[in-house]
Amino acid sequence: MIFQNPEYLKELAEQAELIEKLLDIGAALSSTQNLSTLLNLILAKSREITCSDAGSVYLVDSTDNTPKLLFKVAQNVSLPNLSFREFAIPLTDRSLAGYVALTGESLNIPDAYQLPPDKPYRLDSSFDRDISYLTRSVLVLPMQNRQGETMGVLQLINRKVRSDVTLVPENTLEMTQPYGEWEEQILRSLASQAAISIERNALQDSIESLFEGFVKASVQVIEQRDPCTFGHSERVAQLTVRLAEEINTTTNGSLAEITFSDRQIQEIRYAALLHDFGKIGVPEAILTKSKKLYPHQLEVIRQRFALARRTLEWECTQAKYELLLKNSNQKSTKTENLPPDQIEQLDANLSQAIQQLNDCWNILLEANEPQATEKKPVDKLSKLTQIVYRDIDGETKPLITPKEMNLLLVKQGNLTPEERLVIESHVTHTYKFLEKIPWTKDLKDVPTIAYGHHEKLDGTGYPLNLKQAEISMQAQMMAIADIYDALTAGDKPYQHGLPTITALKILRKEAAQNKVNPEILELFEQRQVYQVIGHSLDVVMKLA
Amino acid sequence: MIFQNPEYLKELAEQAELIEKLLDIGAALSSTQNLSTLLNLILAKSREITCSDAGSVYLVDSTDNTPKLLFKVAQNVSLPNLSFREFAIPLTDRSLAGYVALTGESLNIPDAYQLPPDKPYRLDSSFDRDISYLTRSVLVLPMQNRQGETMGVLQLINRKVRSDVTLVPENTLEMTQPYGEWEEQILRSLASQAAISIERNALQDSIESLFEGFVKASVQVIEQRDPCTFGHSERVAQLTVRLAEEINTTTNGSLAEITFSDRQIQEIRYAALLHDFGKIGVPEAILTKSKKLYPHQLEVIRQRFALARRTLEWECTQAKYELLLKNSNQKSTKTENLPPDQIEQLDANLSQAIQQLNDCWNILLEANEPQATEKKPVDKLSKLTQIVYRDIDGETKPLITPKEMNLLLVKQGNLTPEERLVIESHVTHTYKFLEKIPWTKDLKDVPTIAYGHHEKLDGTGYPLNLKQAEISMQAQMMAIADIYDALTAGDKPYQHGLPTITALKILRKEAAQNKVNPEILELFEQRQVYQVIGHSLDVVMKLA
Repeated sequence: MIFQNPEYLKELAEQAELIEKLLDIGAALSSTQNLSTLLNLILAKSREITCSDAGSVYLVDSTDNTPKLLFKVAQNVSLPNLSFREFAIPLTDRSLAGYVALTGESLNIPDAYQLPPDKPYRLDSSFDRDISYLTRSVLVLPMQNRQGETMGVLQLINRKVRSDVTLVPENTLEMTQPYGEWEEQILRSLASQAAISIERNALQDSIESLFEGFVKASVQVIEQRDPCTFGHSERVAQLTVRLAEEINTTTNGSLAEITFSDRQIQEIRYAALLHDFGKIGVPEAILTKSKKLYPHQLEVIRQRFALARRTLEWECTQAKYELLLKNSNQKSTKTENLPPDQIEQLDANLSQAIQQLNDCWNILLEANEPQATEKKPVDKLSKLTQIVYRDIDGETKPLITPKEMNLLLVKQGNLTPEERLVIESHVTHTYKFLEKIPWTKDLKDVPTIAYGHHEKLDGTGYPLNLKQAEISMQAQMMAIADIYDALTAGDKPYQHGLPTITALKILRKEAAQNKVNPEILELFEQRQVYQVIGHSLDVVMKLA
Repeated sequence: MIFQNPEYLKELAEQAELIEKLLDIGAALSSTQNLSTLLNLILAKSREITCSDAGSVYLVDSTDNTPKLLFKVAQNVSLPNLSFREFAIPLTDRSLAGYVALTGESLNIPDAYQLPPDKPYRLDSSFDRDISYLTRSVLVLPMQNRQGETMGVLQLINRKVRSDVTLVPENTLEMTQPYGEWEEQILRSLASQAAISIERNALQDSIESLFEGFVKASVQVIEQRDPCTFGHSERVAQLTVRLAEEINTTTNGSLAEITFSDRQIQEIRYAALLHDFGKIGVPEAILTKSKKLYPHQLEVIRQRFALARRTLEWECTQAKYELLLKNSNQKSTKTENLPPDQIEQLDANLSQAIQQLNDCWNILLEANEPQATEKKPVDKLSKLTQIVYRDIDGETKPLITPKEMNLLLVKQGNLTPEERLVIESHVTHTYKFLEKIPWTKDLKDVPTIAYGHHEKLDGTGYPLNLKQAEISMQAQMMAIADIYDALTAGDKPYQHGLPTITALKILRKEAAQNKVNPEILELFEQRQVYQVIGHSLDVVMKLA
């Protein structure tokens, strides 16, 4: 039995009501995941049970070398308009809360202005003066976890004799009473239950932030393989999340019907952060390819041109030698009768052939540049397909191999259809990667949202050629954010970033061709969603 | 007031004791993170409060389309040796627990063999028959979260009139009594507090498994860049964790003093899983390099050899032509007096020079193979440094450039010191990556443990050249696991995996040279830690 009070039965009756209340508070504490809500809840319920006029909650902050007490929450019924801002005080035994935090003892003080002189703690009466209040009875309790570590302090002030009075300094002495022993004991248990919930919340927060941190760090290291895309995933996440928030505030049009919950916005964020994760499966050589030929291919061709030239030179000399030999062998006495015309002709042929080789090389260098549009036709190249040389094995071979020619004949950009497929495979790699991960129920759609970011409304996207009805709204939003950032950041090795105004123009064209969602794009423009990544249309218009 | 019972005061006195008990149960429920412990706790405490002889806990399983009730925990004081194994029953209203789970109603049944005929639920009396027990009073309560969803069912059986009796079928009727209304109400609250804890635990588990799944999946995709190392990180994690567990059971030697907590073992596991994460920062070309020259370099050299040969041929013909020309110009009447000896000599010189080129090429091909040991000296190569050819620009150039020669002169393996540094930089990349991540307090040493896995006890490791005293025990363990797996898996493009017995021999040599910890290695061998990744010494000895 915890009760030593002579008014035994009366108190028992009061406590009977408590049972229900306490169990409900326990359940509420366990289920609250927001720290501020939790602290306000424990304070309000503790005040209610004890009929306290005021109270506050402190948390121990040991994150750096000088531990502090964070003054987190304050409630005061008599002064409902009291403004409160969180602040830190040094953790010493000179304050009531500090003493309790350091010793783990409870303090049950009948009159805060009559403290035992042999104790270190003192009331900071400046609070009372500042707010014209009189602190009298005080109950200060440690909030301890199961290991007995003090996580915080619960301070209850002025136990009232009647719950309906408002304490003004004039009536405080008669309208308050000391806290009882049973209240101290029960509240201490309750405070510790709060401590356990705080600890569990902190643990959960730390695991969530560990996950988030790991995701972001891995996205960054994967992006570093292709310097052109650095920061892209984070920006697409910011743009898509902002777009979702803007859709939530839309009141007309078909988007007005759509609302994304906090859970869904978190899901969108992870899908966007991870949409290009599959690029890890694309070889660096293709990711960072900047011309049509890879540098080592050009080097091999250069050597082959040299061999071809030398072969021409050799063949010319050979012809001249044979001419001379034939001439000599005719045993003509007219040794002065050399065929200078023929020799000259051979030399001239050689010069011409070398010139042709040089022309070819220049055409090849020109054709090797990536073309964003089809403006520069590759017609000249077709001439080159006919040119052969004699290799050292004696065989006649094309100067540019069909494989090389295939690379050079690319009409848009610098990638062959095969290479483009490899690049496009990043979406499937992303999906396969994300599918392997045991997403929580709240994030279960991350893989499919990310999977859809290159689909087009008219079914011309990839990898599944989905049509609008099959593409999730989230993926449609992300598609716009992705294209916008790719255009403005200049995500290809041979492209600079475009100004916002140009990117929007390209996106409008895409919308007109039923590639991206026109309503989402309109909102993207109207609400200037792009400003979330630091783009301002005003500034960019001046530059444009 | 929740109490309608006329024995008001007596019950109040009982309930006063309950307050303390209930608050303590609440705190215990909130702080318990293990599901089985939690379920046993709620059942034991509920039985204690209600003086129940037996009880069980069921959880609702909605993971597939046919929801089930999982019979998770059973306790029976009168039958303490009752064996119990978890099983699933269909979720229908025909069973007491199923009815409660489906309706959310409590059932307070005075006699389980006298059920109301208008209700769907029936007692499965086969349980009683099987264990020679008699179920009489039953209290069945839903375990509901704050949203009112039923997570499970708490079933209490046979409220005893005295706590010290053992119920045998003969005395059950006289020694049991029905459950009271207050017990129903209080227990329902407590059951729901348990439900909230179960839900929070499940949430935390799901986030932890999300993190774990993400880590494993990213490690896998990063390893896929270098097929030789696939599965390496997971195996090193298994080996190092097993090593830690074996150290925990060591009772003699200096390792006996070392104990790793569950937290530390988890930390070791993550450090090992992630120890090679920094390989993402090493270009694929270096990671997968299989010979001393990259394939495209060999291709360029091949072309250069062709050019050199053609140049020799040209020069020979040129010399012959000039000889002939000179001869003709001497206007000698003896035109038959050609210099065949000289011509033959020139042709012979050419043949010899071409032969020399071919020899060079063969030496180069031989030198291009990686050498695991210094057995094959690269002396022949030094001859090649002198060989030059005349390029098409007329300049004389070395046939093998100093840069290429530098690659070919590598004495061990196939990497130059510079490339080796790039490979070694993966440790620093790993550390920089891991440092960016907001590890929880429990995992705070993951970065430093992973950072030390290539350090050697004598200070010859990298990247910090730490000595034994500066290398954490965890990193010393991981170093052995890492080397063992690298050797047995064959982690280099030109190496096959070695048998266990050979790998251990190499490790013993490392230990003798004060590179790896000999005591840990001894334990690794003695306890056959390597079997954790499926290696059996017996099998491998046969192969060796």
